[in-house]
Amino acid sequence: MFQSIKKWILGLTPPQALALSYLGLSLIGTLLLKLPGASHQPVSWMQALFTAVSASTVTGLVVVDTGTYFTLFGHWILLILMQCGGLGLMTFGIIVIHLTRGQLALKHRAALRETFNHTGQGDVRRIMLWAIGFTAIMELLGTVFLALQWVPEMGWGKGLFYSFFHTLAAFNNAGFALAADSLTTYADNPLVNSVISLLFISGGIGFVVIADIIDNKRFRHFALHTKLMLVGTLVINLVAMTVILVLEYGNPATLAALPDWGAKLWTSWFQAVTPRSAGFNTLDTGALFPSTAFFIMGLMFIGGGSGSTAGGIKLSTFIVVLLATWAFLRGQERPVVFGRGIQLDIIRKSLAIIVISLLCVSTGIFLLTVTEGGNFLDVAFEAVSAAGTVGLSRGITADLSVAGQIIIIVLMLIGRVGPLTIAFTLAHTRGESIQYPAGQMNIG
Amino acid sequence: MFQSIKKWILGLTPPQALALSYLGLSLIGTLLLKLPGASHQPVSWMQALFTAVSASTVTGLVVVDTGTYFTLFGHWILLILMQCGGLGLMTFGIIVIHLTRGQLALKHRAALRETFNHTGQGDVRRIMLWAIGFTAIMELLGTVFLALQWVPEMGWGKGLFYSFFHTLAAFNNAGFALAADSLTTYADNPLVNSVISLLFISGGIGFVVIADIIDNKRFRHFALHTKLMLVGTLVINLVAMTVILVLEYGNPATLAALPDWGAKLWTSWFQAVTPRSAGFNTLDTGALFPSTAFFIMGLMFIGGGSGSTAGGIKLSTFIVVLLATWAFLRGQERPVVFGRGIQLDIIRKSLAIIVISLLCVSTGIFLLTVTEGGNFLDVAFEAVSAAGTVGLSRGITADLSVAGQIIIIVLMLIGRVGPLTIAFTLAHTRGESIQYPAGQMNIG
Ligand SMILES: [K+]
Ligand SMILES: [K+]
Repeated sequence: MFQSIKKWILGLTPPQALALSYLGLSLIGTLLLKLPGASHQPVSWMQALFTAVSASTVTGLVVVDTGTYFTLFGHWILLILMQCGGLGLMTFGIIVIHLTRGQLALKHRAALRETFNHTGQGDVRRIMLWAIGFTAIMELLGTVFLALQWVPEMGWGKGLFYSFFHTLAAFNNAGFALAADSLTTYADNPLVNSVISLLFISGGIGFVVIADIIDNKRFRHFALHTKLMLVGTLVINLVAMTVILVLEYGNPATLAALPDWGAKLWTSWFQAVTPRSAGFNTLDTGALFPSTAFFIMGLMFIGGGSGSTAGGIKLSTFIVVLLATWAFLRGQERPVVFGRGIQLDIIRKSLAIIVISLLCVSTGIFLLTVTEGGNFLDVAFEAVSAAGTVGLSRGITADLSVAGQIIIIVLMLIGRVGPLTIAFTLAHTRGESIQYPAGQMNIG
Repeated sequence: MFQSIKKWILGLTPPQALALSYLGLSLIGTLLLKLPGASHQPVSWMQALFTAVSASTVTGLVVVDTGTYFTLFGHWILLILMQCGGLGLMTFGIIVIHLTRGQLALKHRAALRETFNHTGQGDVRRIMLWAIGFTAIMELLGTVFLALQWVPEMGWGKGLFYSFFHTLAAFNNAGFALAADSLTTYADNPLVNSVISLLFISGGIGFVVIADIIDNKRFRHFALHTKLMLVGTLVINLVAMTVILVLEYGNPATLAALPDWGAKLWTSWFQAVTPRSAGFNTLDTGALFPSTAFFIMGLMFIGGGSGSTAGGIKLSTFIVVLLATWAFLRGQERPVVFGRGIQLDIIRKSLAIIVISLLCVSTGIFLLTVTEGGNFLDVAFEAVSAAGTVGLSRGITADLSVAGQIIIIVLMLIGRVGPLTIAFTLAHTRGESIQYPAGQMNIG
């Protein structure tokens, strides 16, 4: 019995294993959150399932207030779900196999290489251990720095846990906060703003990028993927910050209500970087102008880095598609950037990711408009947020019908496992031809 | 002076000539509509410009009521603008060159071949003359059949003109109607429904498809492009009709208000086929459920056939992208359909069309949300309708701000000239490397 289950598990293709492990984690989380000690007041099965999926897929959409509904035990359950879902269940699965069997099968090495977008020939085990080490260090540092704010404010016990919880949620781009208005209280606090945004940007840019930076130190020595991610992240964040600052400057419900330029700049920065795909907020997302909300929907669709805790189609996919389009217009055979060409197969994969993601998101929006009444913009925003595992909401999550909650749950799962991975599984290909949304760039 | 203008015109690349000719037609139309005899009451420059661009780009969005504002002379101006804009200004330009110089330069033959999506080696002149002949026959037949309804109703003079006007607007997918509620009065009229929808489907499927059908008669002898367009049109129309019927069945403002199944079926059919991109309506578009409106936005984005009077990214582009994605998922080198492979270059071009169209439409929606207050769905619907040269509206056109009207004008022009054509012009490529949105399929 145990042997046959083990055999069945080892026989799964990587995308099947990935999809099943997120489903499994969500179901275990649901059971744990239903335990009497997990919540102050009873939560329904639907509320528990929604919360567990949201935490496992590191989204952060909530139907009940995280801080007041769940106990300390409940919060620890969420922390474990977020950490497992963020760093990648597959990593853990492979570590377990690694530890129990002493060595990594070649096909698992290949899968792991793709999970971490590591297209070079380096040692996969090193990258994997490295990712875990980096996570531990960042989460330790994040907790310490945030404690400087929250221990004086709340005392040692609550302050430290508060710091740890938000550090972990930030690094894993999970968006869960213990206050009902997320981090709005700290909208103009430089420490909270800088530590939290540094955590989710470093967690969301991709481990291979961080490893490349630490290994090679100089920009010109970096891999193409690393260069594009660094420049792309800088450009998109600064453009987004400027756009949001300009659009919201006259909004009496957001920037115009803030007393000074420091607060206006910090909130513009935070609202610009959180959609890709941290999910915290320091302004009322529902009070943003429709233009800003639509712009943020674009950022949520793009998302973060491949092989990271972030979601979306990934910034690298977006850049490849823009470069491929530009190259086509210029009559060039293939896009060339930073002196390197981008392989045709990467372009075909990017096209597939864009098409499948658009179909998923459009279908999600369409189904939600059928099941939910209310404002179309709010509904569309919710669907894009779920599919990008972002967690921002214009305030309709708690009011969703059961059908609407199920749609959001499915979108979160698809968003975290990756629409392309799901599509591969549905197209019945063999394990060896599977390629993840990660591994966008041809290096060398 | 005349010689140098002629030299300058002959030196333009085809996309430059196309863009300039639509601009020119619109400006001439504006001046004509400002003539005192064109309207019963004075129209502003902005109203004249908007109407002229809408007619020239065969869109059909209106800021003033076509039937009551303009005189018979004004209606004739609109007819000429629609016919020029629909059949393709380029065709007329090339005919003029052909007639004045006795022969067609090779590069103009190539341009014409692409305009009509005629990738084979057949005689271009034949296709061109053929398109004009087909147009004349269809418009004659359409007028005769519609006259059966409208001459008894309105008398010979008004009835004949009414029939001619709507025939021409339908075949050119121009969407202008003489009643303020479009064809809502005839929502359950089998004659009007069938003649009008047959006209805009045959005008919008692409002349090369019609020519292929008449030349080769049997399905298995048709070119790949023809097969895909025929099957694709049938499938998308039937699916859309079913979806709209199901969604709107319970809507008291649309289908539920209709007395019998005949009316429900005709209106479902009409609302399913008009978004790609005829622009007439027989139900109040603003009263459709948000889910239906969002679904119709998808249809408007897809649009009709290449080298036709329709707009959008074109059904063939949509099919190619779906096939390429499916082939990628199946691990196939390139998509194969009806026993023929689709060339890589076609896939790259489809990717470029999708990306540029999405960027145009998104930018349009974004800018409109900045300039216009009001419902986000209505604003987004308006932008997609303009960019797809569809002409359906949820009722906000007349209330648009001046900035909003300018955005819609620019979207209509981009939509008719083709986002890819504009992008080519902006990317400063030479004439010989230009490929139009037409010419999607590799035949043979
Ligand atoms: K998130
Ligand atoms: K139209």
